Parts: sequence; structure tokens; C-alpha cells
Amino acid sequence: MRSTLGWQAGRAGTPLRRTSLERRELRADDVAVRVDYCGVCHSDLHAVDAHTGAAPLVPGHEFTGVVTDVGPEVTRFAAGDPVAVGNIVDSCGVCAMCRAGQENFCHEFPTLTYAGTDRHDGTTTLGGYSREYVVRDEFAYPLPAGLDPAAAAPLLCAGITVWEPLRALGVGPGTRVAVAGLGGLGHLAVKFAVALGADTTVISRSAGKAGDARRLGGHDLIASTDEHRMTAARDRFDVVIDTIAVPHDVAPYLRLVALDGTLSHLGHLGPVTVQAADLLVGRKKLSSAGSGGRPATAAMLEFCARHNVTADVEVLPSARVNEALERLERNDVRYRFVLDMSDLPQNH
Amino acid sequence: MRSTLGWQAGRAGTPLRRTSLERRELRADDVAVRVDYCGVCHSDLHAVDAHTGAAPLVPGHEFTGVVTDVGPEVTRFAAGDPVAVGNIVDSCGVCAMCRAGQENFCHEFPTLTYAGTDRHDGTTTLGGYSREYVVRDEFAYPLPAGLDPAAAAPLLCAGITVWEPLRALGVGPGTRVAVAGLGGLGHLAVKFAVALGADTTVISRSAGKAGDARRLGGHDLIASTDEHRMTAARDRFDVVIDTIAVPHDVAPYLRLVALDGTLSHLGHLGPVTVQAADLLVGRKKLSSAGSGGRPATAAMLEFCARHNVTADVEVLPSARVNEALERLERNDVRYRFVLDMSDLPQNH
Repeated sequence: MRSTLGWQAGRAGTPLRRTSLERRELRADDVAVRVDYCGVCHSDLHAVDAHTGAAPLVPGHEFTGVVTDVGPEVTRFAAGDPVAVGNIVDSCGVCAMCRAGQENFCHEFPTLTYAGTDRHDGTTTLGGYSREYVVRDEFAYPLPAGLDPAAAAPLLCAGITVWEPLRALGVGPGTRVAVAGLGGLGHLAVKFAVALGADTTVISRSAGKAGDARRLGGHDLIASTDEHRMTAARDRFDVVIDTIAVPHDVAPYLRLVALDGTLSHLGHLGPVTVQAADLLVGRKKLSSAGSGGRPATAAMLEFCARHNVTADVEVLPSARVNEALERLERNDVRYRFVLDMSDLPQNH
Repeated sequence: MRSTLGWQAGRAGTPLRRTSLERRELRADDVAVRVDYCGVCHSDLHAVDAHTGAAPLVPGHEFTGVVTDVGPEVTRFAAGDPVAVGNIVDSCGVCAMCRAGQENFCHEFPTLTYAGTDRHDGTTTLGGYSREYVVRDEFAYPLPAGLDPAAAAPLLCAGITVWEPLRALGVGPGTRVAVAGLGGLGHLAVKFAVALGADTTVISRSAGKAGDARRLGGHDLIASTDEHRMTAARDRFDVVIDTIAVPHDVAPYLRLVALDGTLSHLGHLGPVTVQAADLLVGRKKLSSAGSGGRPATAAMLEFCARHNVTADVEVLPSARVNEALERLERNDVRYRFVLDMSDLPQNH
């Protein structure tokens, strides 16, 4: 086994601790990645908060780094290649979803980057809050030249999560898009929508984010507390991307959707209740999104390189991971924390 | 005022009574219709059951008949023309939805055929369980030759309600469609889907409806109680039309939806709860439907004439309306009751 260092969660309520952890020896199709930057995702916070201690938990599923070693059958990568890894690291490869390039919907459930179960040895996967990760080559993506590796890390989860619905819903020049919630997901949704040519509006509780909305390329900001403007915006948007991370009533956002438009509710993945009549009137649709397949992830990274899209990040040394999680919990970040893992040795 | 006879609801729990009722004198753009056949819709049952007696209630919003008189500005119709009327009889005509031909989504709310409020005189509209109806010409549709007027009546509510999502979702040759619930809405959804060239499956509690499903043109019937077949049908259908008329869990039907497909939940218009993750996995969408705009209604009637699609009906004299409602309540109809109004005089 290979040994590296990472940040492991204890029982809920206790801080993450720096720990030695093992990585598997390289299989024929594995690559070893030196993790340089790992984004801090809302779901990391949920996982840490819900952790029972039954299995080891090392969060982190959006990271960039450099290949340091490859298995004998790997042809796509060589040592020294910059790569990125997202929130899935394996899938069955043969079901209808995998064959459609939607490994994220694999019928056997894809192997999650952390807190997943390895398909071969049954071990619990340990995430990117660590200096080394060993991953099947098909689930590492070349990081295009020109993308800042720290600011690119969040593309691999936050980015693909909003990219998928924007592309699936055909967002392009002239599409009227509203992005509700301007956080890690939301700010990337705005950047993508703008880069795709959409007429993009931000809906935020905080009118104080109007400057940020404009800086991100948004054309307008509507405060969700401004009843007059929310009413005036009824039926206005072909696509509403709801990135709000806490349980909330979706009805006010559904009202903003135009005839035949879609509300993509992706910030909070619990139960969602709508009145059928609110879908009926205007022939509206409700969808959700999360993660993406390999082809879409690769296409997103190419798009980001072409349009110079990365996340707005605050980079902290990985030793400050607990501070990052605490501040994320109170939304004190614009717009994504990224851990700089260079304060840990790769091999230990 | 004009006077005719109809069937009026008393307080909830009491039978409908034969009553004299008034129709307005014809406005310049009105037509008077002798109602020959009126379908009995599930929503009539809801309206009767919920009736408080605050305003007069005469149900009925899917009917066919013959024009007997026209206002001076009417050019589309003349006395003797066979016509059909659905569940809306007026709208503002100027909002974005009306301009888009979706008068059913009018921002000022369309005037319902019964229990609505007339836009001009503020009176409560009285429905088609009566021998005469006076309607603005734009909201009467020519009934194409060759369509049986009794069997065509349910097209105007049940028909358009399922036609709209089938068309909006692009159902055509090769589309894989499942219709859940084989009642008034469901049997028309099957006929339409088949006529549109879709590969059409019925999902029903009752495996005993397999013969009916085939007779209607369906290619298969899956009993919703057959766990094995329901599991095997996972991700199989591009479009699932859920016509089940009572509150129910939509999750089992959402599981049948294929990648990028849609569940149209239109049989029961209350709140509907889904797990966002059930939409996420497979990039599925939830929609609803009900009624239709003028262009879609006219197009549906033309399609029905071309493909010889009408409802399977059981025709009863209007005097047996209470029996029809009772039997509908226990689903004892295949598949739509239609009242023959010829047992009432038009003018009284």
C-alpha cells in the first residue's frame, strides 16, 4: 500500500484531524495524482456533520493536481500531466447510462470519490482532502492549459453540477436565465450562462450582491425580498437554476419560469413539493441536477479553457480546513474555498 | 334573458336537480349553442362534492351541439353549424399567454365554462349540463365532420388535457410513452399516443385491463402491482403520462422515465412531492397539464378527425346525471360518461 497524509473527520462536531492514510497500489489502469488543490463543497459539510464514525471519512471531491505515477495499461496520462478529478471515480461501464456517457447515473451507482465503495476491493473511498489520490484513469480529466489549478478545482463538482442542466436545457444566445442563490454553485452558473450567451439575471436575498452579479457578467439582480420586482418578473425566464442550499419553497421561483420553461432545483437535494397547478399553468417543468458524466465533464473543461471560466476562490492552506468548513456553514465565502494541499507531503 | 333547462347542484351530498336557468342575450360576438352531448368530467364530481351553495353550480365543460343563433359580429359560425366547447370560454386576449395562443394560462385567469366569472357582467358561469349555452364565438370550435358528437364531447376537456403534454413533449413515431391510469384521461392519452406513432404502454393497477389496453392500440400493459415488471421497466419511457385521479406517490412512475424524459402528472392537481435526487438521476423532469389554448384545441380536433380518435363513452339521458356521477365516483365507467341532453327543451 501507498501511504499519504490527509484530513479525516471524527465524530460529528469534532474538527477534522491530520492523519496518515493508505492508498491502494496502482492497478493496471490507475493513475496516482499529487493533489494540489481541493475545493470545499457544501456536501463535504453535510458529510462531516452527519458522520457517525462507522467508516473513515476523508472529504473532498473536486480537485486538481499532477500525475506522479501510472499503471502499466494507462495510455491517456503520463507522470507530470496536470489533471482534475470530480465526485465519481468509477462506474459499471456497461449499463445503459454508462453507455450513454452518464456514468453519474450508473445503474449500479457510481463509485463516489469519498465515502463510496471501491468496486474491486470493497474499501471505503477516501477523498481529496489529502495529498495523494489513486484513481482509475478514465475518471481523471486532463486539466487544460491556461486554467488556474486552484480556481479550476471547483469546476469538478460545483461546475459540472450547473453545467449539465444549462446544456441539457439548451441554454445559448438569447436564452433568458435566472440563477437563484449566488454561492459556490450560483456564481459558476452565472459565469457559464453568460459565457453561453444567455441573458442572465441573479435572484438573491441580498441586494448587496448586485455589484458581484454584474462583475460575474449578470445583466440584472432581483432581490428575492422585493415583491414588486418578483411579481414583475413572473413568466420571464426560460430557465431558472435554483442553487439555494437550504430547504425552501420553490413556488416563488417557479412563478418566474416562462411558458415551456424549466426550474432546475439543484442546491438542496431533499424532498421538494410543488403544486401541480403551478407546473400546469405555463406548462412548466421541474428538474434537478448534480454531477455529470465523463463526456460532459471533459466538454465543460474545454469550454472553461476557451472562455476563461473558473471559480472565484479563496485559497487556504489545508491545515485551515476546519476554518473553511465553519465559514462555509455561515456562507462566509465568495464563492468557494479551495484547500492548498502543499502543506502536506505526498508520501509518508 | 334567454331561459333554458339544466341540472343544478344543491348543497354537497344532495342530488342535482332539473332547473330552469337563464342565459344572457347574445352579445355581438356570441353564439347560442343547443347542447346535444356533455361529458361528465372528474372535476364535475369534485365541484359538486365541494359545493357550498354560495353561487349556483351547473357543471359541464366538455360538450358538443349545434349553433342556433349568432350575434351580429359573428362571422365564423352560422345557425346549424356543429360545434364543440371546452372548459374555458373567455380570456383577456392581450397578455403574453393569450398572445401565445395559451388562453388557458391567461394572466387574468381564463373564464371557466362553469363556476367562472363572466368578464363583462360579473355573473357566475353555468355549465354544459343544460340544453343551451351562450359563448363568445372565439371559444367555440367547429366540430369536424365525421366525428361522432357524443364520443367527441370528452375531447374538449379530457382530450385536450392529455393532447397538450403529448404535443409539447414532442411525442411522435418511436417515442416510448407510458400512460399510468386507464380512465377518462388515460384511455384518450393511449389513443393519441398510438395515433402519433408512439410505442405505447399502459400502467394500471388492474392487469384485467390488458385486453382494453390492446384494443385501444397499446403495445403492452404493466400492472403497477407487479414489482418485477415495474423494476424491469426502469428508465424505459421518454414520456410518462400520469392520469391517476387520486393522490399517490409519483416515485414509482418517475423511476420508469428514461434519461432526459418527463413525467407529466396531470390526473390529480394537488401538491406533489418528489425527491430532487429522483429527478437528478436520469436528468428527469416533472410537468403537469390541464386544458389547452385555442390553437391546440383546434389542432387536436383536426387530428382526431384525421385519425378517427374519439372517446369510448357510455351515453346516458341527462336525467340520469346523478347515476353517472355516482358511478364515476367508484370508477365504474369505460371510459367516459356523456349526457344526452335531448331530454331537455332548449328554450323554456
